[in-house]
Amino acid sequence: MAPTYTLYYGRFIQLPRQQHSQPGIKPSLEINTGVLWVLNADGIIQGFDWSVPMNEHDDAKGQDEALSAFVQGKGWTVVENGSDEGSVQKDTVIILKGCRKGGNSFFFPGFIDTHIHASQYPNAGIFGSSTLLEWLKKYTFPMERSFEGKEKAPPQAYTVYNKVISRTLSHGTTTASYFATIHVPATNLLATLCHRRGQRAFVGRVCMDNLVFCPEDYHDASGEESVTATQEVIDYIHKLDPQGKLVAPIVTPRFAPTCSHKVLGELGQLAKSYNPPLHIQTHISENKNEVILVKELFEESESYAQVYDDTGLLTPRTILAHAVHLTPEERALVKARDAKVAHCPASNSALGSGHCEVRKFLDEGITVGLGTDVSGGYSPSILETARQACLVSRLVSSQSAASETTGYESLSVEEALYLATRGGAQVVDMADQIGGFDKGMYFDAQLIDLGAPVETLSEDSEVSLDDGQGDTGNIDVFGWENWEEKIAKWVWNGDDRNVKAVWVSGSFLSIISYLPMSLVSELDAHSG
Amino acid sequence: MAPTYTLYYGRFIQLPRQQHSQPGIKPSLEINTGVLWVLNADGIIQGFDWSVPMNEHDDAKGQDEALSAFVQGKGWTVVENGSDEGSVQKDTVIILKGCRKGGNSFFFPGFIDTHIHASQYPNAGIFGSSTLLEWLKKYTFPMERSFEGKEKAPPQAYTVYNKVISRTLSHGTTTASYFATIHVPATNLLATLCHRRGQRAFVGRVCMDNLVFCPEDYHDASGEESVTATQEVIDYIHKLDPQGKLVAPIVTPRFAPTCSHKVLGELGQLAKSYNPPLHIQTHISENKNEVILVKELFEESESYAQVYDDTGLLTPRTILAHAVHLTPEERALVKARDAKVAHCPASNSALGSGHCEVRKFLDEGITVGLGTDVSGGYSPSILETARQACLVSRLVSSQSAASETTGYESLSVEEALYLATRGGAQVVDMADQIGGFDKGMYFDAQLIDLGAPVETLSEDSEVSLDDGQGDTGNIDVFGWENWEEKIAKWVWNGDDRNVKAVWVSGSFLSIISYLPMSLVSELDAHSG
Repeated sequence: MAPTYTLYYGRFIQLPRQQHSQPGIKPSLEINTGVLWVLNADGIIQGFDWSVPMNEHDDAKGQDEALSAFVQGKGWTVVENGSDEGSVQKDTVIILKGCRKGGNSFFFPGFIDTHIHASQYPNAGIFGSSTLLEWLKKYTFPMERSFEGKEKAPPQAYTVYNKVISRTLSHGTTTASYFATIHVPATNLLATLCHRRGQRAFVGRVCMDNLVFCPEDYHDASGEESVTATQEVIDYIHKLDPQGKLVAPIVTPRFAPTCSHKVLGELGQLAKSYNPPLHIQTHISENKNEVILVKELFEESESYAQVYDDTGLLTPRTILAHAVHLTPEERALVKARDAKVAHCPASNSALGSGHCEVRKFLDEGITVGLGTDVSGGYSPSILETARQACLVSRLVSSQSAASETTGYESLSVEEALYLATRGGAQVVDMADQIGGFDKGMYFDAQLIDLGAPVETLSEDSEVSLDDGQGDTGNIDVFGWENWEEKIAKWVWNGDDRNVKAVWVSGSFLSIISYLPMSLVSELDAHSG
Repeated sequence: MAPTYTLYYGRFIQLPRQQHSQPGIKPSLEINTGVLWVLNADGIIQGFDWSVPMNEHDDAKGQDEALSAFVQGKGWTVVENGSDEGSVQKDTVIILKGCRKGGNSFFFPGFIDTHIHASQYPNAGIFGSSTLLEWLKKYTFPMERSFEGKEKAPPQAYTVYNKVISRTLSHGTTTASYFATIHVPATNLLATLCHRRGQRAFVGRVCMDNLVFCPEDYHDASGEESVTATQEVIDYIHKLDPQGKLVAPIVTPRFAPTCSHKVLGELGQLAKSYNPPLHIQTHISENKNEVILVKELFEESESYAQVYDDTGLLTPRTILAHAVHLTPEERALVKARDAKVAHCPASNSALGSGHCEVRKFLDEGITVGLGTDVSGGYSPSILETARQACLVSRLVSSQSAASETTGYESLSVEEALYLATRGGAQVVDMADQIGGFDKGMYFDAQLIDLGAPVETLSEDSEVSLDDGQGDTGNIDVFGWENWEEKIAKWVWNGDDRNVKAVWVSGSFLSIISYLPMSLVSELDAHSG
């Protein structure tokens, strides 16, 4: 059978592969129009051509002519989406236009959420007046306990895990690194649902065997169980997705206070025993009281980061969530081990954990991505997280005597989007596979529409009922903005209404809130 | 003609009239179900009865019986919305149910935006990498200049002012205190549009005569013009709405750096010459460089607040926006004059202006409301502003050694909503007229729907295409939450999709984005 491609046509916006060569140089948007093609068999980008003209003003005829010329040059036969491709002997192509009415749509790399607790999603937005450690006991642990099921996962797990996948997809998250709970059946279910629904995911069964901090009714039965149950989940996921094309296991000690030194060491060993080593995720230095607690619990270690290093958990495939209060020495250790940081600004602010000074990490060459940290973070949206990263960095800057006039600590909109895509790809050690539109990468993408420009009114104009605000949310483009300004409007006021479609490995994922039925029927066959 | 009422039926949530009797006591939600009735002639709440039963579970028959019994007891005749009420000799009533499917809807007082630049709306979300003073020159002043029109307002003014009214209404803002521009025709147009479309508003023509700071191409021709043009707008608005029922003028010196001492004094006199004195709005101590600038420009004054006090601008009807860097002495002066503060956290963070320590203001008895400060603030939503107020207060708390464990500086969700409604009402000196559902107040309200609870899935469940996320945005209620938790979910993840209807003075305002057509046809006749 001859190969079949999908040809995407429109505007493609991404961040450059390298953030900056030296401190203080901020990345610019890469903006191109033209075509990009993906081999349907594996969802990998085969090439792009930015010389194919794209008419900005919805001239369908001009677009079709440009596309025809390109496809002819390739020697491809155009087939309808959903047709029986097998019967065609020539290379075939499905054409998919991303040019929506109004001229303000574009393809963007899918977002990567490097830290999210899938099981906590029902608590999103509920904090009470607690701080981190109290909040864990009052809201988090009881919620996670509700995923218990000895033989099989309870309905709670189906309900919540389906919902969190729907919500993250609807916000454009194509890859997520999930914390589940301590329960093997529910954790396996999360992996199955991600696999079935097509979201790229790392799925971790949470380990917590240290009764000093764990609640009485929610912990591993023993240190041994922490390891054997983790092994069970790893085996399940490896069987589910043998080549790890979509879903992979991730070793997940919750954080130092909930784990014995022995278990931490055994989990480090377990990760290392695979080739390549397994991914690892945990929390570090989120909250000042937590740092004090770790100092008490692990007297023999010099620092919080040292606890993880001593136990073999500080690796190039380790995701450290939060890292708000790391010392310079700990940052140096993280950098030396090439461990990665999940910056979770919405959560850090909402729980009052503090400001994470991201500029220092970037300047020191530490790899940083963004994490929603649901439900310490209130929102499953990485766009919201990017916004909060900008806000927090500006407050850091406002408190810095050195940078008051330069805004040096401030993250630009482009930097926040870098962290949300390229940075996240580095954090999950997939910088060559996802995060951009490079040849050889998976086509993990979202189609964003900012809506048609606002119509100019005059004294006699009738104001129409829906005011043109129909389906592209709160962004108002007036028509004079350049693309950098449009992207800024997206970052500051965009939401899931701007996400019109999502693809992972070139598969269109059809379960997205607010996906217009028309687009579904146009694209649905492609999801197989 | 016998009087006609509208009877609202459902759940009513509001904040108590008094925030707290002593520092540290946080307000609780007042949650009631039953009926509330409004005299249609003036839109004023005549009474409420929380003993009328409301079935939580959509039993329309039970609801109708409860309503019938109540209406009969009152001796009212029920008429259809839009019928010819004049022909009925008895007191008549239109019944309006606010109980939407799923049981998670409620009436809430309309939001009050105490500080918003209507003319800057097209720039929302565009900051570049600037700080306050640079941003004014690069983005703000050029935008405001585009509203110029000697004889009549340009199309830009129609377009932008209609859009900003649509957007603020769609987010539930029933009262706004608007900065316009220096242009009389465009400022008058903004007042006209608010009046015509039914939004309660204070509309101010911006005064800026000091060429030391004003841009060359955007300033008042002279100090005299600052005053005479302001007078023109005041006269226009007083003619437009003689009793000030909906729209009122507000004296608006932009801020000290753009105004001469002489003009500041004359504007103070102008406000004072009316009975009652006119409202005044301006900015204060938003940014550290601005504070330094004011010290240089007004050497004779002890402080920024003193500049306004010396010129008669610090009055009980004065709205001071930002107030991030006020000294304790300045706070004491503001308190002594009973001037009010518009807290603009989204703007303060986005521009890197700094943290405003709101807890100190509240503890000292200074009146505080919320301001979006579009476009220093990126969003026209007071709900987003309330969220940012919570976030910033938690970061203040995290930096306070004293409160690290107590979270004393943190604003609770309820406090943020207090500031958004009751607080805002006090700031615009209308605490007896708006901000709650008290008898004798205008019915300025929004109908909020958080959506039906998430359906519990099992292994065999099909995940439906729209996943039940249809029209209530990003909030997921799972069914176990109490109302305090549901309100927390609203504050943290709600948006304009949750605003299903808005009333000002009992008039239903029909131009709201995402307003379902069915609700429009049901309610539209009432808007006349």
